[in-house]
Amino acid sequence: MNTHVSVAHIGLAVKNIESSVKLYRDILKLEFRGVEDLPRAKVRVAFFVAGDTKIELLEALAPDSPIAKFIEKNGEGIHHIAFSTDDIEKSLKEIAGEGYTLIDTKPREGAHGSRVAFVHPRSCNGVLIELVQEG
Amino acid sequence: MNTHVSVAHIGLAVKNIESSVKLYRDILKLEFRGVEDLPRAKVRVAFFVAGDTKIELLEALAPDSPIAKFIEKNGEGIHHIAFSTDDIEKSLKEIAGEGYTLIDTKPREGAHGSRVAFVHPRSCNGVLIELVQEG
Repeated sequence: MNTHVSVAHIGLAVKNIESSVKLYRDILKLEFRGVEDLPRAKVRVAFFVAGDTKIELLEALAPDSPIAKFIEKNGEGIHHIAFSTDDIEKSLKEIAGEGYTLIDTKPREGAHGSRVAFVHPRSCNGVLIELVQEG
Repeated sequence: MNTHVSVAHIGLAVKNIESSVKLYRDILKLEFRGVEDLPRAKVRVAFFVAGDTKIELLEALAPDSPIAKFIEKNGEGIHHIAFSTDDIEKSLKEIAGEGYTLIDTKPREGAHGSRVAFVHPRSCNGVLIELVQEG
């Protein structure tokens, strides 16, 4: 699979995006790309450009959001790493074929019209890995 | 501070680098840059190039290594995000001046001759942030 060569973004679980923007926009001087709600995933996301990758802040939109559950269990912190792919179905097939456990066997809707799927952290040394095919 | 514009690397705490290389080198097809021991920090590190950032695997070299303690508390997983700076003393002064708590008030030795310092996760929504000035 020569398709994952860059980190699309690093996802950080926060209780409140508004109060978390300062560090990334004002202190680290990353370019702020604004906020988007993803109601199906029950998350609000904010993106900051950092070289050819991005920082993604994730805030829960509902108490049963995966982000709310993550924060309840772990506290705020780094949630996942997203790798780019230009053929997400092929990538998922290859990764599953190597014995890794998929959370999403089929891609689902991500931010900015992207298609995304997650690999289970128990397959990846505790790291939640997302695959992203940009829209 | 216009000096932090890219993510130098993402650090992942693993029990064993050797058994963790497969995912990043063979499945995600990232360029493997080899292994380095940092005895003062009590860690062994392995780097993989991913676009203009890197994945850093961290393995404890001693039971009292910060990585051993992290894994004991949290299990394996994402440990920190490192942002590049071209003037680490200036960056530390600015960040401290904004009220963020530093773990390292002065830079210390990092991988490949770099100078590094960490900001405390309690200042940064649970995220352990490293500043790196390349050697």
